[in-house]
Amino acid sequence: MVQIAVMGYGTVGSGVVEVLNTNQASINKKAGEDINIKYVLDLRDFPGDPVESKLVHDFEVIVNDPEIRIVVEVMGGVEPAYTFTKRCLEAGKSVCTSNKELVARHGAELLEIARSRNLNYLFEASVGGGIPIIRPLNSSLTADEIEEITGILNGTTNYMLSRMTYESLDFDSVLKDAQSRGYAELHPEADVEGYDACRKIAILLSLVSGQQVDYEDIYTEGITKITAEDIKYARKMGRAVKLLALGKKVDKGFYAMVSPFLINDQHPLYSVNGVFNAIFARGNVLGDVMFYGSGAGKLPTASAVVADVVDAAKHLHRSIMTFWSSQKLKLTDVSNAKWRFFVRVKGEAARDALKMAELFGPIEVVTADLFGEYGFVTGVFTEKEFAERAAKTDAIIHRIRMEG
Amino acid sequence: MVQIAVMGYGTVGSGVVEVLNTNQASINKKAGEDINIKYVLDLRDFPGDPVESKLVHDFEVIVNDPEIRIVVEVMGGVEPAYTFTKRCLEAGKSVCTSNKELVARHGAELLEIARSRNLNYLFEASVGGGIPIIRPLNSSLTADEIEEITGILNGTTNYMLSRMTYESLDFDSVLKDAQSRGYAELHPEADVEGYDACRKIAILLSLVSGQQVDYEDIYTEGITKITAEDIKYARKMGRAVKLLALGKKVDKGFYAMVSPFLINDQHPLYSVNGVFNAIFARGNVLGDVMFYGSGAGKLPTASAVVADVVDAAKHLHRSIMTFWSSQKLKLTDVSNAKWRFFVRVKGEAARDALKMAELFGPIEVVTADLFGEYGFVTGVFTEKEFAERAAKTDAIIHRIRMEG
Repeated sequence: MVQIAVMGYGTVGSGVVEVLNTNQASINKKAGEDINIKYVLDLRDFPGDPVESKLVHDFEVIVNDPEIRIVVEVMGGVEPAYTFTKRCLEAGKSVCTSNKELVARHGAELLEIARSRNLNYLFEASVGGGIPIIRPLNSSLTADEIEEITGILNGTTNYMLSRMTYESLDFDSVLKDAQSRGYAELHPEADVEGYDACRKIAILLSLVSGQQVDYEDIYTEGITKITAEDIKYARKMGRAVKLLALGKKVDKGFYAMVSPFLINDQHPLYSVNGVFNAIFARGNVLGDVMFYGSGAGKLPTASAVVADVVDAAKHLHRSIMTFWSSQKLKLTDVSNAKWRFFVRVKGEAARDALKMAELFGPIEVVTADLFGEYGFVTGVFTEKEFAERAAKTDAIIHRIRMEG
Repeated sequence: MVQIAVMGYGTVGSGVVEVLNTNQASINKKAGEDINIKYVLDLRDFPGDPVESKLVHDFEVIVNDPEIRIVVEVMGGVEPAYTFTKRCLEAGKSVCTSNKELVARHGAELLEIARSRNLNYLFEASVGGGIPIIRPLNSSLTADEIEEITGILNGTTNYMLSRMTYESLDFDSVLKDAQSRGYAELHPEADVEGYDACRKIAILLSLVSGQQVDYEDIYTEGITKITAEDIKYARKMGRAVKLLALGKKVDKGFYAMVSPFLINDQHPLYSVNGVFNAIFARGNVLGDVMFYGSGAGKLPTASAVVADVVDAAKHLHRSIMTFWSSQKLKLTDVSNAKWRFFVRVKGEAARDALKMAELFGPIEVVTADLFGEYGFVTGVFTEKEFAERAAKTDAIIHRIRMEG
């Protein structure tokens, strides 16, 4: 019997309890041990709830109970989760978490503490919800050097972009609808500004590179500037606007970015719609692989947390995660990243496109029956080259990067 | 230093050597040990080849060398691979393989021998080439009961169906082309009759159920009867013909099948084209996940084999695979499986469809400008119900199952 504690009885925490109850027999068989929830930590009371008798309000009860071998941290946020996690590890307990903020900020340190004590700090649920991606990176793609990892890592923004595309709605009305359905929060900045995706790609790129990627270093652009007009052009081009979070190896290292991209229908992420997430990786010998599934939601996220609990139970005295060094990875400047750009400009194509071609070289004009403006696609430019050219005109309304 | 031997220096074997050389530094770092190829076993000589000095013709050299801790079996076929694998395990060596015939036939027994000796028998490359699927099933999807696993598991047939669809070619000319490109073998039965996909779904379903699934028990229908006319109807319906290998849980257990299906554009496997493979799984708490990538090819397959070698090196004295019991899983009769059917019949829709509606109930007529025939889609029938009705008419030219 392995005794565990669940810290945080919110959406994911109650999901973890539900998954452990629903699949008790098969989970215990796979773990090779019976897994029993001894405590649930929450500041609130839940009168009448099945976990009522296990509820504790004081973290000290958990950390000081030597019977507890595995702690599930699904509180979210950096503090007190950071302090609690550290103390649990120092007390000889493995920790499984869905807390992307904490993993992105202190993952390397917490992994190192776990490793030094032959414990585990596992965080499959921190990226891509129920999609297995952390464990495959850690133990399946080990023959490869990963040259690129690109994901649709935020279900809220993907849902919004999908509806804008397929129902020709504008940003504000889709956001309101997403909020009313509980897909977007009242303060949606973490999603729509790309911060959530940024933390997740920081975690993935840390694992890929084996070094600490600070999310503050990642160029991040959200979807708040994407308009119904942009989508019209996208449809005209047979492309989709997707918020991509990517890390790519170039000569001198990795660059990382979160940004909307116009991708074509041959791109493996093109048909990832709605609240689904997907992660695409390219290995130097494996080629392309993609992992697709429910990127969020109570039960899919809880499924990933519980899979970590099973693995922790199977490895009570053995550290299984690959090392992720605290040494900081210096990201390559994104100003050297290159792609084509789609540009919307004021004016009329027939009259003004020549001026743009003088500035940007060969361009492909795209029109979408919008009054007083037109669009065009440039050749491949670095960010820097594009910015220099773009600075020479005041006609630009908006630009979106292109992939594929 | 971990000494390994590679048995078989064909396509995959030479790929394994190439991958280990190409990514030597990162592979050794991830394994935590230097991995060194001490022997390569092959009946042939390879004068001038870099492995020439390591080449041995006698298996006894490998099995009797106590320095060898891990053996890569990439010979293919059941014998002598089975005898060699068994003897290696009995001599205390872990074995990593891409050999789907052997895994499908003797996997349970070989896993049990490995387990009883704290060794590993790993076979990530036996299904889906470079796509991680065995390890995710074994250690990531452990919180779930898997209710369905469906894959496009054969790259050759998927390539052929893709070309038939996108270039309106017929089966024979596509097969000839695939053979000339080396995508299909001179004797293509293993691919086009579905036998290869059948062995792979037997392996996946064995892992999902934890019991032995004999591939002889799986209803298997290949793509040899798929014609250019079928594809015309498929396009008319906005559907694709895919050779699916599936295992599904029903009330009384699992049924399994390999068959062409008409799938719609909402199906996660719809856009898997060319030589790519993909595996879709549905968990009772996780929902849907999909794994996509290169299902075959020298380097992707070798990448999966080498990832197994890394895992075996990290676990020299610890069995990591989930148990797969030798106890046979009795599959549920597919005659109770139900779906809609697309049916092509002789005659004219305007004149004859009413007779078909009398036989099959409400039908949707589909025409594809073909002389003397038309098609229709039935409601949901079990295999048995459909067969009973179909036996009452001699107008049927062909029928294809439908999903989604």
